[in-house]
Amino acid sequence: MSLPTTTQQWVVAKKPVGAVHLSGPDATFALKTVDLPPLTPGHVLLQTLYLSNDPAQRPWIQAGADPERAYTTPVAEGEPMRAFALATVLASEDPALAPGDLVSAALSWSQYAVVDARAAQKLARVPGIEDTAFLGALGGTGLTAYFGLLEIGQCAPTDTVVVSGAAGATGQMVVQIAKKMVGCRRVVGIAGSEEKCRLVESLGADACLNYKDPDFEAKLKAATQDFADVYFDNVGGKILDLMLTRVKRNGRVVACGAISGYNDRGAVAINNWFEIISNRLTVRGFIVTDHLERAPKAREDLIKAFQEGKIQISKGQETVVDTKFEDIPKTWLMLFDGGNKGKLVTKIA
Amino acid sequence: MSLPTTTQQWVVAKKPVGAVHLSGPDATFALKTVDLPPLTPGHVLLQTLYLSNDPAQRPWIQAGADPERAYTTPVAEGEPMRAFALATVLASEDPALAPGDLVSAALSWSQYAVVDARAAQKLARVPGIEDTAFLGALGGTGLTAYFGLLEIGQCAPTDTVVVSGAAGATGQMVVQIAKKMVGCRRVVGIAGSEEKCRLVESLGADACLNYKDPDFEAKLKAATQDFADVYFDNVGGKILDLMLTRVKRNGRVVACGAISGYNDRGAVAINNWFEIISNRLTVRGFIVTDHLERAPKAREDLIKAFQEGKIQISKGQETVVDTKFEDIPKTWLMLFDGGNKGKLVTKIA
Repeated sequence: MSLPTTTQQWVVAKKPVGAVHLSGPDATFALKTVDLPPLTPGHVLLQTLYLSNDPAQRPWIQAGADPERAYTTPVAEGEPMRAFALATVLASEDPALAPGDLVSAALSWSQYAVVDARAAQKLARVPGIEDTAFLGALGGTGLTAYFGLLEIGQCAPTDTVVVSGAAGATGQMVVQIAKKMVGCRRVVGIAGSEEKCRLVESLGADACLNYKDPDFEAKLKAATQDFADVYFDNVGGKILDLMLTRVKRNGRVVACGAISGYNDRGAVAINNWFEIISNRLTVRGFIVTDHLERAPKAREDLIKAFQEGKIQISKGQETVVDTKFEDIPKTWLMLFDGGNKGKLVTKIA
Repeated sequence: MSLPTTTQQWVVAKKPVGAVHLSGPDATFALKTVDLPPLTPGHVLLQTLYLSNDPAQRPWIQAGADPERAYTTPVAEGEPMRAFALATVLASEDPALAPGDLVSAALSWSQYAVVDARAAQKLARVPGIEDTAFLGALGGTGLTAYFGLLEIGQCAPTDTVVVSGAAGATGQMVVQIAKKMVGCRRVVGIAGSEEKCRLVESLGADACLNYKDPDFEAKLKAATQDFADVYFDNVGGKILDLMLTRVKRNGRVVACGAISGYNDRGAVAINNWFEIISNRLTVRGFIVTDHLERAPKAREDLIKAFQEGKIQISKGQETVVDTKFEDIPKTWLMLFDGGNKGKLVTKIA
């Protein structure tokens, strides 16, 4: 088999101000074919197998974002759209990696890439766990749940934990880690449909509430009668605003995501800020990439919990979408319409 | 001199939903004359000299406030309006206090009161410091600045500190403690007039910005070019929202007050919540009354700093308003129109 010398890739054509556009003069992304650089010592040639779809990618391409204040380094116009990915090694000029190895790396929406071998982490497959879990339960989202609950939220067995976006990739792991690994007294999920709520309860949540239910607010109050010690916020906006009134005095808010506002900042106004003062809350924002030094230990803990039957790391926690290369942006946009369950993974067809 | 057996007092007649009303059918307060209880062992009869006027009193009387979520225990309709106060002992049935002693206590808008002697803290006068400072720089507001900066904000000499409401009672102490006691690298105040800003600079702030200046936003950016490590928020609302964009990555927000929203919650919407996540901010709400155990040590530190010439505890930090008993609510309302400089103290005429 001859090795590829070019690759198709999606670049950021025009950073969006409001909504992302798939076509037209303001199309956010453009498809290109570019030459691959030669494979030099210390480098590997990778073929992308799976792309991770993350809400955090949206701020990377926000128009007018100040690089110094951005979530992580923004992606400039003309650059390939960055994404965490799983890839297979096609050719290697580094002793640490061999053809056929499975690796995870920060790549882009490209078929092939030549990267420094040190930037690709070799993954050891675990019996009973799908490869795609290395993007989800054992990847960014699982580690977000792990560090957010244990380090930022200082979660303890006596705690009542509420998590929004509970059927999402991070949320499912928050529920399981809180209930099955920490052994929290009570875990309440918030999700966007009855079906998602039943999934969340099947993972161990004591209750899960559908925020589209007209009685949601009353039900949330009833489900948090003694208030929450920890609120793990994946969504921001109205649910966060409401939850500020349901966190216990001296309680903690883990500010993890604000997907409700990624495409429209104005939609996430917080009116209950005063609760932070009057109830002496601590709100901590965090980003999992700051904690990756301790990722191997965290991944080990999660695999151990899986092997002991405490937590599920199953296909049900992922939505893997077989996607033609031309449809990568379309699959990514599924993140924002609330349609997917768990981690949204693009399988490059 | 015969001792009083009755007292005039202001009670909460009708809790306000929006604005406080001084008269009419929805008048918030009503003036009454009530009998004093007999002076029994362990109790003292006090004459109120000075009333502390605090923004925090507003939430105490908010209509519909949930007692479990309230700032501190609310004041019920029919109860006297609670206030921190300085008083003189008229008669004592307790060995710890004698007639003529100066005390501070949580009293009410009453001329006289009979209280448990343990609820009144005897104050030792300090040469060069006015008695009223025990309500301000050495009282609730000074201690709020002290604990807010040192414990909640974990303020260090390498820090740049920004404080809003900088000409207010708490703000003036924040500026001085940060610059003169901690020795912070840079201290920037935000206040509501040029005159207030000059006062703040005279207390040691490296810069002070008038938020009513049309170029305020640009000037704030220029004054916080390297961003702030600590933002001490006394006001909430728009200034807080803007400051969320000016706090350094991993910086801290001390959520102390939100006076801009006390009379109208809807006016304080926060649109920049996402900055908390993307810049990994820690926001901590606090209330000084949780920290009063360590007040004697804090007061000692502040008096020592005053005696070493590091900080000013001067008349300029207080606005003492000679007030007829009938006008107590009117003086209190001066808190909310931004007119007073420093601690607003009511001297009962």
